[in-house]
Amino acid sequence: MIGFGVIGYGYWGPNLTRNIAETKGAAIIAVSELRPERLAMAKTRYPAITATPDHSELIDDPRVDVVVISTPVHTHFRLAMQALQAGKHVVVEKPLTASSEEALRLIEAAQAHRLQIMVDHTFIYAGAVRKIKELVDNGSLGKIQYYDSVRVNLGLFQPDVNVIWDLAVHDLSIMDYVLSARPAAVSATGLAHVEGRPENIAYVTMFFEQPLIAHIHVNWLSPVKVRSTLIGGSDKMIVYDDLELLEKVKVYDRGITVAPNSESFYQALVGYRVGDLWAPKLDGTESLSVEFQHYVHCLETGERPRTDAQAGLQVVRILEAATLSMKDRGRLVELQAKGVAA
Amino acid sequence: MIGFGVIGYGYWGPNLTRNIAETKGAAIIAVSELRPERLAMAKTRYPAITATPDHSELIDDPRVDVVVISTPVHTHFRLAMQALQAGKHVVVEKPLTASSEEALRLIEAAQAHRLQIMVDHTFIYAGAVRKIKELVDNGSLGKIQYYDSVRVNLGLFQPDVNVIWDLAVHDLSIMDYVLSARPAAVSATGLAHVEGRPENIAYVTMFFEQPLIAHIHVNWLSPVKVRSTLIGGSDKMIVYDDLELLEKVKVYDRGITVAPNSESFYQALVGYRVGDLWAPKLDGTESLSVEFQHYVHCLETGERPRTDAQAGLQVVRILEAATLSMKDRGRLVELQAKGVAA
Amino acid sequence: MIGFGVIGYGYWGPNLTRNIAETKGAAIIAVSELRPERLAMAKTRYPAITATPDHSELIDDPRVDVVVISTPVHTHFRLAMQALQAGKHVVVEKPLTASSEEALRLIEAAQAHRLQIMVDHTFIYAGAVRKIKELVDNGSLGKIQYYDSVRVNLGLFQPDVNVIWDLAVHDLSIMDYVLSARPAAVSATGLAHVEGRPENIAYVTMFFEQPLIAHIHVNWLSPVKVRSTLIGGSDKMIVYDDLELLEKVKVYDRGITVAPNSESFYQALVGYRVGDLWAPKLDGTESLSVEFQHYVHCLETGERPRTDAQAGLQVVRILEAATLSMKDRGRLVELQAKGVAA
Amino acid sequence: MIGFGVIGYGYWGPNLTRNIAETKGAAIIAVSELRPERLAMAKTRYPAITATPDHSELIDDPRVDVVVISTPVHTHFRLAMQALQAGKHVVVEKPLTASSEEALRLIEAAQAHRLQIMVDHTFIYAGAVRKIKELVDNGSLGKIQYYDSVRVNLGLFQPDVNVIWDLAVHDLSIMDYVLSARPAAVSATGLAHVEGRPENIAYVTMFFEQPLIAHIHVNWLSPVKVRSTLIGGSDKMIVYDDLELLEKVKVYDRGITVAPNSESFYQALVGYRVGDLWAPKLDGTESLSVEFQHYVHCLETGERPRTDAQAGLQVVRILEAATLSMKDRGRLVELQAKGVAA
Repeated sequence: MIGFGVIGYGYWGPNLTRNIAETKGAAIIAVSELRPERLAMAKTRYPAITATPDHSELIDDPRVDVVVISTPVHTHFRLAMQALQAGKHVVVEKPLTASSEEALRLIEAAQAHRLQIMVDHTFIYAGAVRKIKELVDNGSLGKIQYYDSVRVNLGLFQPDVNVIWDLAVHDLSIMDYVLSARPAAVSATGLAHVEGRPENIAYVTMFFEQPLIAHIHVNWLSPVKVRSTLIGGSDKMIVYDDLELLEKVKVYDRGITVAPNSESFYQALVGYRVGDLWAPKLDGTESLSVEFQHYVHCLETGERPRTDAQAGLQVVRILEAATLSMKDRGRLVELQAKGVAA
Repeated sequence: MIGFGVIGYGYWGPNLTRNIAETKGAAIIAVSELRPERLAMAKTRYPAITATPDHSELIDDPRVDVVVISTPVHTHFRLAMQALQAGKHVVVEKPLTASSEEALRLIEAAQAHRLQIMVDHTFIYAGAVRKIKELVDNGSLGKIQYYDSVRVNLGLFQPDVNVIWDLAVHDLSIMDYVLSARPAAVSATGLAHVEGRPENIAYVTMFFEQPLIAHIHVNWLSPVKVRSTLIGGSDKMIVYDDLELLEKVKVYDRGITVAPNSESFYQALVGYRVGDLWAPKLDGTESLSVEFQHYVHCLETGERPRTDAQAGLQVVRILEAATLSMKDRGRLVELQAKGVAA
Repeated sequence: MIGFGVIGYGYWGPNLTRNIAETKGAAIIAVSELRPERLAMAKTRYPAITATPDHSELIDDPRVDVVVISTPVHTHFRLAMQALQAGKHVVVEKPLTASSEEALRLIEAAQAHRLQIMVDHTFIYAGAVRKIKELVDNGSLGKIQYYDSVRVNLGLFQPDVNVIWDLAVHDLSIMDYVLSARPAAVSATGLAHVEGRPENIAYVTMFFEQPLIAHIHVNWLSPVKVRSTLIGGSDKMIVYDDLELLEKVKVYDRGITVAPNSESFYQALVGYRVGDLWAPKLDGTESLSVEFQHYVHCLETGERPRTDAQAGLQVVRILEAATLSMKDRGRLVELQAKGVAA
Repeated sequence: MIGFGVIGYGYWGPNLTRNIAETKGAAIIAVSELRPERLAMAKTRYPAITATPDHSELIDDPRVDVVVISTPVHTHFRLAMQALQAGKHVVVEKPLTASSEEALRLIEAAQAHRLQIMVDHTFIYAGAVRKIKELVDNGSLGKIQYYDSVRVNLGLFQPDVNVIWDLAVHDLSIMDYVLSARPAAVSATGLAHVEGRPENIAYVTMFFEQPLIAHIHVNWLSPVKVRSTLIGGSDKMIVYDDLELLEKVKVYDRGITVAPNSESFYQALVGYRVGDLWAPKLDGTESLSVEFQHYVHCLETGERPRTDAQAGLQVVRILEAATLSMKDRGRLVELQAKGVAA
């Protein structure tokens, strides 16, 4: 039985805790949380746990093998480092850290102590995203031509990070998982409507070294909630709507046909193809449940988690670059996509 | 009775012709078109017209008071100039010209000959857009915070213009009509998926001198058709979906509330407001019908058309700037928003 | 070339006329219509036709081979009989006649004169319905368990027929085409909200001699337009939404599984199956165009039209029975499904 | 503090228990359940409760003031009667009983013992239904002309009741609450697709003594889930879609206009009115939470619950009549709408 301690019992912490509690081979040992009423709620739901306002007590508890960090982004690095140095495996809510520098230092520390970091890139474990990955990998879509995502709602304005760090992080982790290529450069634009607050609306374009383009629209100030992603392939195209109950992934047999050797440039070289629509059945298991089963398996076997710290670092690098570009109103920021040797 | 001649009877020409034919005070005198089978179709529908492959014959016909140009963009300037020099009023399909230089020269020629140019910015005459204009003008929305539009479909790849000139032109004309401010700078990104062809997917951000941002996503390679615009105001927000049958404009009484003097930066300064939804009844008259009634009225009274050549020029300037920015992967291009003295 | 004359140029007549005019092998010879302004409209669009207020002139015109009747239901029989007696083939707008007695007499007259009657059951020629027919016939759906249709809108209250005769007629013709069985009995309910007018809201249940049930909800007083049909099969189920632009027919691989020999009646014998969704590409050709091509083919070859007078009679019989049942608040009315020897 | 005991911890019991636990003034004392694993689940979530397989132990527990019955329908009467005779207030899951005879006997027993029965007609406490009630009561809709509901899904085939008792019960309770009139007669049709099981698809029409008609379509064998109700009024109409996240209630300013003294019956007496759409903000509080706050208030003050046993009886009477009519394929069954003296 692997012992888990959860730091932070705010919005997401209860979901993490519930799923860990229901994972075979895992046990919730302790929860730490500063707000007394939130801590009491945890204790009521899980009477057997140690509930403490002191995260160090949790980290130092010898029964705790894994420290799960569900706190504001600017605290991730400090808490994760303390846990690693205490010899504990670490799960960190997305994004991994507030900078790539911090992420690199966590990677080094984990390697030094032979510990496993998993980043909670939840969507990677969702049935819809796993199906999309399968369709991309088996070539059903042909060459991927674009990835376009809209992730907007009337959302909590976060005080310490802009909307890209809050919402686009989901798409960046999905892209990193699903696409075979990584962005080479970023151009981002955005605006803060509340003075003194980070940007609450943003548009991020990513360029690649092949004819592929990605774009993410994130917005905390939308009257309606939208979670819609288009993935264009040369053979088929996907519309992924996460708000649909069952048919989240629709595969369209549509696209263009190009006649290569036309004599006249102005004649209709480019034709159309419209075929069937297909919505595959998806595994409906809760993503967090799949995620923690996978993590327990990794801890038992020594395999790397699918969303390890390298994946977390890759996402943070793009978040940094996008924020930089946004400050400079769309200026192109190149990405060194090479990463740390894994 | 004002006599109209239509040059170009391809995709849009028949719609223009039909609406002119049904406009009180207007008469279709002639149609010119190079493809014989298209020309024959016009003659069959309107047996009384002069049908000719020669646009000069149409322009020079003394019964023709207005020349309507519905041909590829790169021919607009030449044909419009010829018509103006022949003393004819001119209606030009959007966009007005292939460059702002050309637009300026048309404006000068029209002023010199005391003739009226109307650009066919069709959406300006749609019930939905007129209602949005009314709601913005009467202050219902409060301060406008953003304009965000998605206009995508599996579309005809045009050989001579990129997707911005084809699709974003609609949003630029709507913005110019609806918003009280004009963009100060543009950052655009995009990609051409067919070699040797203009960009078929593009993202255009526009900055203003006030806390307002605009963004347009246009795409000829989408599996689904989307025509959706969000207009965020400090008091109310609009979702305008042009594919809805009746409820194209939805007004949401939603937004954020900001408590100005909070002691702690990290406490919830930013709250929410969720109220009713309202979809006003819209005038369902066909836009082109409203447009030509308006134009005939302008010709009779000497009033300026709502979508005159100045409006056309303003749109072309942004199209030019966006294309320039897109070639340079998002580089900020400033706009001289001052315009020609009207 | 087969000559067509159209009686009635109101709401539907122009659609019939336009499609006949565009059908290879067919020519519009004459249109008759009582209202001068409607008649003038026909003459403007088709300058070569004989336009007359006198339907007898049209019927007696020797160039007219086929008389198309697009007038109120209560006039169908009289006009069709006159045309048949003049030796003309006949196309009748749905429903064929105001009673089965009238339909039988037309069938006899057509047989006597060796003429072809086609009823304008338009939906039978629609890509969506032809695809559904194909899926039912090739066994994809398994055993058909129910047919459930909602066809409601804010509609024109017809003065001479109730809403069943106006709207349910579409579903009855689709059912007659798609299902292999015919209803054995009808129970219908409804209400007239405007005094002195026929029923404007109605519900029709049809029973069969096998475990199959059909139900149609029609309503002229609905705030929203709905055209939605569920067809349940033991293997797959269809949702047919005629208001969808492209994906009108969705095939769901869903259903129940029944374990036959369970010991306990109260244990879960009945399980579920949820699989993929599939929306086949449909032929988008206008239904009326397919219909008249088919009819011209039938006239040339002597084949029976797919929607011949027998099909029209079958529908009228159910309309009669449903109206009878509705007057008596749901009383079961048996149908003699045997029909006339074809 | 009022003590509650819950009999039955299957599908709905946990929701009842959780909401009672969170209701001010209420406390969960005991849960009884036959299946050991379900009982263990209750004990884990509420460690302080008495968990017992013996419902009599729960009923006789002196700390239990209210017995909540969440068991199959055929057990409701026996358990409720036992609780009443033990001097306990009773909450019964819908429908109240398996027959109106049983319901009447419970009403008498409760009166004799001066105890309060509440039926769990959950929807009556939903924000959407309360808003509809408000709009009907304040006359916004004008005269109600029809109530039409579709409540279908791929659902659990219940072994002891037909689909009307499972699903239509919701609509019957909503109608009883919202409409000022009660049905005078019922005609129902339906079919059982699994041999030996109750009907899994049904259509219920209700007639009133005024020009109002109601219809409910319920189905356990639908590929898609639908929860859609149309309420037509002479002034405005409602579309209530319970699957919508926020805009569950849409009010359409649409309808017909009737010119009373027209000379010609066949001229267009009946015109149309199309105005705005309005979706009022709804109270989003969980229905069960509102329901138990209301019940605790009733117990404290002696007020009658909004969904008392009379309301339960009224619904059961229609369920009985509809089942009778359905057995006889639509035969009209009159309702004695007078009820027991309250």
